[in-house]
Amino acid sequence: MAISEFGFISSLAARFAELPDGGFDRIGDDCTTIDIGGGESLVMSTDMLVEGIHFLREASSAYEVGCKSLLVNLSDVAAMGARPVATMLSLSLPSDAVAEWAEEFMRGYYDESKRWGTALAGGDTTSSRDAITVNVVAIGRMATADIKRRSDARVGDMICVSGKLGSSAAGLRDILNGDSTTVHARLHRRGNARIEEGAWLGLRPEVHAMMDISDGIASDMRHIMERSGVGAAIAIESVPTDTDIKTAVTGGEDYELLMTVAADECERLRRDYFERFASELYVIGRIVEPTDGGIEWLDRGRRIDVDWHGFEHY
Amino acid sequence: MAISEFGFISSLAARFAELPDGGFDRIGDDCTTIDIGGGESLVMSTDMLVEGIHFLREASSAYEVGCKSLLVNLSDVAAMGARPVATMLSLSLPSDAVAEWAEEFMRGYYDESKRWGTALAGGDTTSSRDAITVNVVAIGRMATADIKRRSDARVGDMICVSGKLGSSAAGLRDILNGDSTTVHARLHRRGNARIEEGAWLGLRPEVHAMMDISDGIASDMRHIMERSGVGAAIAIESVPTDTDIKTAVTGGEDYELLMTVAADECERLRRDYFERFASELYVIGRIVEPTDGGIEWLDRGRRIDVDWHGFEHY
Repeated sequence: MAISEFGFISSLAARFAELPDGGFDRIGDDCTTIDIGGGESLVMSTDMLVEGIHFLREASSAYEVGCKSLLVNLSDVAAMGARPVATMLSLSLPSDAVAEWAEEFMRGYYDESKRWGTALAGGDTTSSRDAITVNVVAIGRMATADIKRRSDARVGDMICVSGKLGSSAAGLRDILNGDSTTVHARLHRRGNARIEEGAWLGLRPEVHAMMDISDGIASDMRHIMERSGVGAAIAIESVPTDTDIKTAVTGGEDYELLMTVAADECERLRRDYFERFASELYVIGRIVEPTDGGIEWLDRGRRIDVDWHGFEHY
Repeated sequence: MAISEFGFISSLAARFAELPDGGFDRIGDDCTTIDIGGGESLVMSTDMLVEGIHFLREASSAYEVGCKSLLVNLSDVAAMGARPVATMLSLSLPSDAVAEWAEEFMRGYYDESKRWGTALAGGDTTSSRDAITVNVVAIGRMATADIKRRSDARVGDMICVSGKLGSSAAGLRDILNGDSTTVHARLHRRGNARIEEGAWLGLRPEVHAMMDISDGIASDMRHIMERSGVGAAIAIESVPTDTDIKTAVTGGEDYELLMTVAADECERLRRDYFERFASELYVIGRIVEPTDGGIEWLDRGRRIDVDWHGFEHY
């Protein structure tokens, strides 16, 4: 959900930047933002899920795909610190998915919409020859002053994550190994989103930069570093995970929140967060002065030489 | 671009209607609207184009698909009476379309964006196994009081269209007959949108209901009739077309504007429109009291018994 994903048209992206911006801020965050006056902004995200790439019909139920399609988009809105209010849904369906598959998909989409109080504000349906494609737009509304951007990290900030990492990637591995019944596998198929948490963190000024973890922190952390012009040091023994450290930092689709927090407010924030959500904000590192060398990975204080990359889009 | 297209989930659509609306108006127009305060609204449309359904790689150039993907969405915004300000673009691309096809597509998308002054505010790119899928969201901003809805037609209104009908369908027929070089074929491949015209008509209070013609007036007129609770009488000899009358009223993808206009202001509007655009607003019929029988088709005043339907989505 960023112009930067158009790697194959980088020269054109620069040309688009010369067009009028229509009031929209297009600087590589989870969402586009538009100031609507009165101190408020809309934030908008769009994501496309394709059969055979993002899900397999034999591995994920239609209900699960319906849940996940909504959740991954609401996660982008929450990652800006906003509360999602509505979505738009486009679906292209081959003839063998028009009836039962579509009904079950919509049941999942509806259940998660109801759970998070989001309207279905519009959409499009069409046929396709072979594969199912789902496109969701999620829209949130929030105070402009509270928008959390990837560009807001400051040297000295603590780096925190909202939950265990690598679970979704471990679940995908389970599925590919033939066991779709594990807890991780179920998490991978249904998706995850820290929606209440994101809106709550949006109101805390000590939270500086924020984004959701869709490609693994080895990749996503770099977005914050690039946009904020800072470096990052991550203590691998502090990264919360149920799986191995490499999967935890390079696995995609966790949809936990990654944020940087003013150091002297961090402990109070973590206490308040735990009191509110009965769930931990884990400190995994520090924002440091920018370096040439990417993320500094530390093992109990000692620098380790690894070449970890998150999931990368072509 | 309407919930009503979800024919296969009509029972679920009713359930979605019970969820909070998030401030969005979801009543079957070309666009969803959201009141953003200060007398202003955003209008938003989304459309999905699928290879093999909406375009064929062998018949349409990537550049043309790029133009058309943008235009059909801007047309929805213009049909509300709004000026489009930004779009979001999702693309899924098989490996044989990642390079040259995508570059050419983006060149078309860029040229039309530049022409109409719309920002590219966000997007998503992903791979796919076989087919190209394009999803565009178009966003406009306008005075809430000027929004033109399908539900605003009144008995006695004149029915007008902004251009010749059936050209795109005739072009598709040419293409299927092996001749992609006709004027109609080119129009079909590139698309059309009355963008300046829509925004101008939006400011005219004598224009009551408005929508764009995507499925042919035999189908689209019914949306206005249903939403406004009115009937319609159409004089087939007045329908502007370069092709046969059945193609003109049942062919899809013309993207001309269909509107109803206060009868006593209609001639002045048409004069002003011609002065502004050097193009005609054609009067094709009248809004009448609702009947059970659908559109009344008249041939030089005499009722004719035809069973014409526009392009219908499953």
